[in-house]
Amino acid sequence: MRRNETMLVDFYEFTMANGYFNSPFKDKVVYFDLFFRSLPDKGGYAIFAGLESIVEFIENMSFSEEDLTYLKNRNLFSDDFIEYLRNFQFTGDIYSVKEGSIIFPNEPVMTVRANIVEAQLLETFILLVFNHQSLIATKASRIKHAAKGRVVLEMGARRAHGVSSANVGSRAAYIAGVDATSNTLADRLYGVPAAGTMAHSWVQLFENEVDAFRHYAKVYPNNATLLVDTYNTLKSGVPNAIKVIKEDLVPKGITNFAIRIDSGDLTYLSKQARKMLDEAGLTTCKIVVSNALDENLIKALLDQGAPIDIFGVGERLITAKSDPVFGGVYKLVAIEEDGQVIPKIKISDNPAKITTPHFKKLYRIYDKDTGKAKADLISVYDEVFSEEKPLTIFDPEHTWKTQTFTNYTIRDMKEQIFKGGKRIVDLPTLEEIRAYTKEEIGRLWDEMLRFEHPHKYYVDLSEKLWTTKLNLIKEMKQQANEEK
Amino acid sequence: MRRNETMLVDFYEFTMANGYFNSPFKDKVVYFDLFFRSLPDKGGYAIFAGLESIVEFIENMSFSEEDLTYLKNRNLFSDDFIEYLRNFQFTGDIYSVKEGSIIFPNEPVMTVRANIVEAQLLETFILLVFNHQSLIATKASRIKHAAKGRVVLEMGARRAHGVSSANVGSRAAYIAGVDATSNTLADRLYGVPAAGTMAHSWVQLFENEVDAFRHYAKVYPNNATLLVDTYNTLKSGVPNAIKVIKEDLVPKGITNFAIRIDSGDLTYLSKQARKMLDEAGLTTCKIVVSNALDENLIKALLDQGAPIDIFGVGERLITAKSDPVFGGVYKLVAIEEDGQVIPKIKISDNPAKITTPHFKKLYRIYDKDTGKAKADLISVYDEVFSEEKPLTIFDPEHTWKTQTFTNYTIRDMKEQIFKGGKRIVDLPTLEEIRAYTKEEIGRLWDEMLRFEHPHKYYVDLSEKLWTTKLNLIKEMKQQANEEK
Repeated sequence: MRRNETMLVDFYEFTMANGYFNSPFKDKVVYFDLFFRSLPDKGGYAIFAGLESIVEFIENMSFSEEDLTYLKNRNLFSDDFIEYLRNFQFTGDIYSVKEGSIIFPNEPVMTVRANIVEAQLLETFILLVFNHQSLIATKASRIKHAAKGRVVLEMGARRAHGVSSANVGSRAAYIAGVDATSNTLADRLYGVPAAGTMAHSWVQLFENEVDAFRHYAKVYPNNATLLVDTYNTLKSGVPNAIKVIKEDLVPKGITNFAIRIDSGDLTYLSKQARKMLDEAGLTTCKIVVSNALDENLIKALLDQGAPIDIFGVGERLITAKSDPVFGGVYKLVAIEEDGQVIPKIKISDNPAKITTPHFKKLYRIYDKDTGKAKADLISVYDEVFSEEKPLTIFDPEHTWKTQTFTNYTIRDMKEQIFKGGKRIVDLPTLEEIRAYTKEEIGRLWDEMLRFEHPHKYYVDLSEKLWTTKLNLIKEMKQQANEEK
Repeated sequence: MRRNETMLVDFYEFTMANGYFNSPFKDKVVYFDLFFRSLPDKGGYAIFAGLESIVEFIENMSFSEEDLTYLKNRNLFSDDFIEYLRNFQFTGDIYSVKEGSIIFPNEPVMTVRANIVEAQLLETFILLVFNHQSLIATKASRIKHAAKGRVVLEMGARRAHGVSSANVGSRAAYIAGVDATSNTLADRLYGVPAAGTMAHSWVQLFENEVDAFRHYAKVYPNNATLLVDTYNTLKSGVPNAIKVIKEDLVPKGITNFAIRIDSGDLTYLSKQARKMLDEAGLTTCKIVVSNALDENLIKALLDQGAPIDIFGVGERLITAKSDPVFGGVYKLVAIEEDGQVIPKIKISDNPAKITTPHFKKLYRIYDKDTGKAKADLISVYDEVFSEEKPLTIFDPEHTWKTQTFTNYTIRDMKEQIFKGGKRIVDLPTLEEIRAYTKEEIGRLWDEMLRFEHPHKYYVDLSEKLWTTKLNLIKEMKQQANEEK
């Protein structure tokens, strides 16, 4: 039986939920925003991934008898709360940006409107999925960008942080443009194309390298990528590969073959190997490289003119090694009282940790002529903007910095996914998500895609929202002073 | 239905396995070693974790009809190979160090003896599990060491790299000495004690902070950890916590309560809070802190005299943020021919990547008086050492460096787990593994536990093994030259 993931909940969600359940707040309708605070690797953008997993989780939430017994035995929870969990199902609303969207810090990318008990029980899983999958998609997008159109293979399963890290990690990388995965299960589960040919053990097992290559070429004549660095890349591996390709594949009219270099100085070795292959007339032979690659190493290889066709990327993609934490948070931003939405705020000594209150909309403003994204605008949920009128936005930190758009389109980024607990949209296929992401990246300025000091994209608050926030901060400060 | 993980296999394992299956090597018995090359965070030791997951995987390996159809449709594999997979079961032998053991670079911590097809199909999963769980256990051990006996809570689920990262990550952290987890599912699945109290949303939802604390203390009088940094830690949070504890809990005779600080300067705030609590007579009130902690921050806090009782550790533990890749590899080291074990080697331009050939044993040498570990010795499988005789070992890189032991005990670190495909040992419980790890860490010198330039533990090769390796390197080099 598949392990039920409903209990993947931080224990404090249960203590709080039970606490609310036994209080006047039991049926209180609240709004939680999902957002993140800073871009991994000091990049210019992030990719939102994981919506499908979140929807699947919510639709399948169910506490087993064993789960309930476990909770009962903790002697912390009331019987009626346990009874409530027995029949638990989500009854709220969820608004979210589409999976594969480009997202920026401090934007509400998902909003959960539900009673407080339900909203709390979703928190851990939503954060886990959002943080993990967006992290990997964002990293993969950078890597694919560095490869400048060349093929990138995700081959990190053996260094992944557990089974789901390998599986949904492959999926997230594919969304962001990576071309295939080494992980067969990711193909079975999600349709990420799986690929791969041979390891060093193959070469080691045969009497000699030529025999190893020859046998492989015999079994897989149309799919031979020969691993050339088991003994000595240039003295043994490449010459033996050339020999086998020329003797066993070329005579059959085959032109699709490759060599793979997995160690050493990849620039030097790929240049020398290219020369040797070309001199042997094997100009169609592709060169695959791997070995702890990431976007910076790939960029360096290409800057040095390394003639590489395909990059195999492992541990540094699947773990997002250079910056493995995507700091997504899930914060209470409003409550309902008598049908009115009342904004709530969390104050902090650290200004970056003060939340933006209220039930909010997220708009993206595009230049009408170029189609490029110009800025994002966060507003109160009931504000309406017309493309017919000029739109002035201002920086929420430096309010004297304003920008006025006249020739623009404006897009409401979030759509409602759940209404009264029921999903009301069809989820896109993986290929649709991938195509959407590619399109969205195409709408970013090149200056946002670079790795060094990328252009900082504008994410502004509407004046109404900004005023609301400021007033709440003042109010809270006053209240804190009075309480002293 | 639970998703079968058997297909979590790098695709090249299938292409190789099918290639072997249709070759004279089909039934070739081979030996693969599992080892890692360098210690995360430049530490002094690592902890082996994941054996239970590996055993469970191997015992449950099974290809479904859908898996077989998928493979068939790839048009790469022979019908008899697909048929073989339909009835697949592991028939080999596995030798492994115990879960929770202290391990060092380049040691064979697990050896798989099986026919080449089976040995290849296990590779990806063994590596994934070993790399992930050992990484987290090792990181957690460092964090627990930094806390100097204080309680450490693992609370990283929301930043974990997927579901299994959260679940088995909690388990690995617990093995290494962490005291509890926030993740309820890790308790349900593995028995890691789950704990937790309240989030900022709890405090925000109530009319004011005092009401929030008061309601919590009412519902959980014996388990109240009040989160004091929602508005202002010292001006509002701590005074309100003191008020509620004194008015609502102390009169009931309760002495078990705590405050939690989740932001700001934790040294300053904990010192001030301690002072305020003590002045209010609440000397038993514990102080819990959290906020991107790891071993270095914990050490810094304690060095500064921060009066902290409990550390909550999240993203930096569950992702091993400072060094999130544990570079375990799985390499062919020998084959059998007519019942004889024939060592195999992989050469590399990078000396560190040259494998140590042969079917090997791993011994640990302890000082008889202190019980402390002195060095590890890797030998050929059939070498026997007697504690009665002095034992001289030498550094495999600097062979003039020798060490002779006279008063020692020697322990064979690996035990046979599978024999002919059947498991022949009972696996220890989680508590047993945890106790074993604690004991093993107690047998390390303090100099190995420190973070800055820890003492490098000796891992030496027996003379017989060293000679075998050297001869094979020469042989390979000669062969490469002849082939030119």
